[in-house]
Amino acid sequence: MFELQLKNDSLFLDVLESILDLVDVASVDCISTGLRLQAVDTEHVAMISLLFPPEFFSSYNCEKNRSICIPIDNMVKAIRSSNKDDIITIKVGKENLDISLSFESPGGNIATAYDLLLVEGKSPCFEIPGWRALDSKYQAIVKMPFAEFVRVCKYLSNIGSDGDISVTKKGLKFSALGKSGRVNIKYKKAEEATVEFVMQKPVSVTFDLKYVSSFAKVSTTFGQVKICLLTNQPLMIECKIKHEGYIRYFVTPKAKPEMEEEEIEGSGEGKEGSECLY
Amino acid sequence: MFELQLKNDSLFLDVLESILDLVDVASVDCISTGLRLQAVDTEHVAMISLLFPPEFFSSYNCEKNRSICIPIDNMVKAIRSSNKDDIITIKVGKENLDISLSFESPGGNIATAYDLLLVEGKSPCFEIPGWRALDSKYQAIVKMPFAEFVRVCKYLSNIGSDGDISVTKKGLKFSALGKSGRVNIKYKKAEEATVEFVMQKPVSVTFDLKYVSSFAKVSTTFGQVKICLLTNQPLMIECKIKHEGYIRYFVTPKAKPEMEEEEIEGSGEGKEGSECLY
Amino acid sequence: MFELQLKNDSLFLDVLESILDLVDVASVDCISTGLRLQAVDTEHVAMISLLFPPEFFSSYNCEKNRSICIPIDNMVKAIRSSNKDDIITIKVGKENLDISLSFESPGGNIATAYDLLLVEGKSPCFEIPGWRALDSKYQAIVKMPFAEFVRVCKYLSNIGSDGDISVTKKGLKFSALGKSGRVNIKYKKAEEATVEFVMQKPVSVTFDLKYVSSFAKVSTTFGQVKICLLTNQPLMIECKIKHEGYIRYFVTPKAKPEMEEEEIEGSGEGKEGSECLY
Repeated sequence: MFELQLKNDSLFLDVLESILDLVDVASVDCISTGLRLQAVDTEHVAMISLLFPPEFFSSYNCEKNRSICIPIDNMVKAIRSSNKDDIITIKVGKENLDISLSFESPGGNIATAYDLLLVEGKSPCFEIPGWRALDSKYQAIVKMPFAEFVRVCKYLSNIGSDGDISVTKKGLKFSALGKSGRVNIKYKKAEEATVEFVMQKPVSVTFDLKYVSSFAKVSTTFGQVKICLLTNQPLMIECKIKHEGYIRYFVTPKAKPEMEEEEIEGSGEGKEGSECLY
Repeated sequence: MFELQLKNDSLFLDVLESILDLVDVASVDCISTGLRLQAVDTEHVAMISLLFPPEFFSSYNCEKNRSICIPIDNMVKAIRSSNKDDIITIKVGKENLDISLSFESPGGNIATAYDLLLVEGKSPCFEIPGWRALDSKYQAIVKMPFAEFVRVCKYLSNIGSDGDISVTKKGLKFSALGKSGRVNIKYKKAEEATVEFVMQKPVSVTFDLKYVSSFAKVSTTFGQVKICLLTNQPLMIECKIKHEGYIRYFVTPKAKPEMEEEEIEGSGEGKEGSECLY
Repeated sequence: MFELQLKNDSLFLDVLESILDLVDVASVDCISTGLRLQAVDTEHVAMISLLFPPEFFSSYNCEKNRSICIPIDNMVKAIRSSNKDDIITIKVGKENLDISLSFESPGGNIATAYDLLLVEGKSPCFEIPGWRALDSKYQAIVKMPFAEFVRVCKYLSNIGSDGDISVTKKGLKFSALGKSGRVNIKYKKAEEATVEFVMQKPVSVTFDLKYVSSFAKVSTTFGQVKICLLTNQPLMIECKIKHEGYIRYFVTPKAKPEMEEEEIEGSGEGKEGSECLY
């Protein structure tokens, strides 16, 4: 038997909603260390990895590990319709055929139960090369408030569909180039700054904005975003969820366009035009 | 002459808006006992019957009974654009050709007047078999807060396009079955419960959700919903409007699908799987 | 060099947004007397003329007059994404190739810069016959609160796509005629009325509502609208912006339909049916 209970918690729902644009089906491992969810977008560009540890739930009962494939959109619709004070119980039946969500009102005389069919097929095992890398192996790590990250995504999306992030001696720079022009958002190192970054080696990564902008729709603001960069490796974007839980996006980088190539400030000595703001 | 006056009252507008999704044209009887509106949806599945008694209006002047066909959407658009303190006067001309709506501002120096063409054709006379049934003739009657009813409609719509309502010895149950799974909302009898139901004989009726979910869009929440059930007869859903007015939906039931057939708890002794919550 | 600075000011953004529906590209004169923007809609029915005087900005530096064509939608998107406390600097480069918008956060350690490509081609010179007419040359001038003007546009749009405005001895009348009926909004002269009008000679002008209803979407409400009328000449609608700035719409009048012709109350002695409200 697998059963967990949670209070109607907008965080759980928000986290699931944040991945809805990218995936329909998620692979879920119900194991003793928590509910682990993994999903790959249909174009195989991004992987999402989520962990809700047992402490996240009001009760968590896992007698036997199991792997299932759940229909994310139906789960979200069901949870979204629950009442604020409802106690939500999620159960997986013995045959792994369906997942049941029941909402119980505080009074106890109303009981709502959804039985959602699970998606057939084996739960695939995902591996993204390098994602277990320690922080010390990354060339650069950026930490910024979630709201600032959302703002940057909006800036970049105004201009193009791809974004570029680079960390050099000059500082941290996000940029996008499109038909209508270009945009740069530059951060200088500063004490007490809300945006921090450390660099072992200059790095610049280009990524498809749609794989990160789904974050911007979530109403719960996560505290902080951590972005880990390694040349030619998937960008890792991580937000912590309480009790050691997390949501991680791994986004395959794009090859840089020629024009942009000249702009990479890999050496920290790149020439910049008169529009340079530093 | 037929003339009535009302203050800009969101209730009058909300009631008309609640039927906009289903009907374009409504038959209206302007009679001494009030404004009686009847309309049938284009697919002839639902009938709506509305009564605004004379007391509902600030003045009501009906010299001679008359029946007209009004364009609901144009009426709603016009009333929606009136100002909060406007006095709204609705008149029907002698030849039944147009309906005039005039809004007068409190100061009296602005006058807005709409003259809307009436829909040609005789006002048909609707009869729904059994709708004049006394409460005692129904097999079961359910009363629930309007907000709870809206919530149930949302639950059911998450799963399918048809909903099922049944009242048996076990209690009141709403359910829906769809490709993605199923949902049950069950109510036990309880003192001080906000959802009440009385049963003369077990009953189960399946209906198309779209004919009741238009209610959910109305911003005015009616106090209570009364649902009257009779096997193979139109479901009657009624909300009271102040001063003995009402809005009633009569929805033709659907034949139950085979799968669902087994689930009918007509005898009150139906077998239920382990997911039974009672 | 041309450079100006402004605080993130919803008025500047709102004014630009109000013309977005009608035009993609605007011709801008950067001159010592202010930023003058002119644009003609694609159907050549309406002309928009805007002036932001130097005092409107926190700094305004124009060494040499220049005329450029700017992509309005990209400008609006960029400014819309700035932060509330940002100082926005707008610069035009020497070669008139791009316009740069940079946002600086109060702390100074974040710098966002958009470089938007200007639209190629010469900035055309617009002339609308008669628009320099003095107030005394108009047949009638109407002044009303902005909110009332928005309300009138909504009334008229409910019925048709064309609106008619007339000022006669009887008063001020807005009207529209459509398939579903007609609407009249009439204003009597009154002391302390918020809607004022002066008439030298009776006048009636028909115009396409879409060219004025874009105003209704602006969240900043301008204080007052001034409407200037001259038979067979463009309707001029003007809103003041602080520091002697303005936004003016010049809308080419439409030929009056036959039916409407009879209704013109040019002589102030027109026959009206029993629905007359004066």
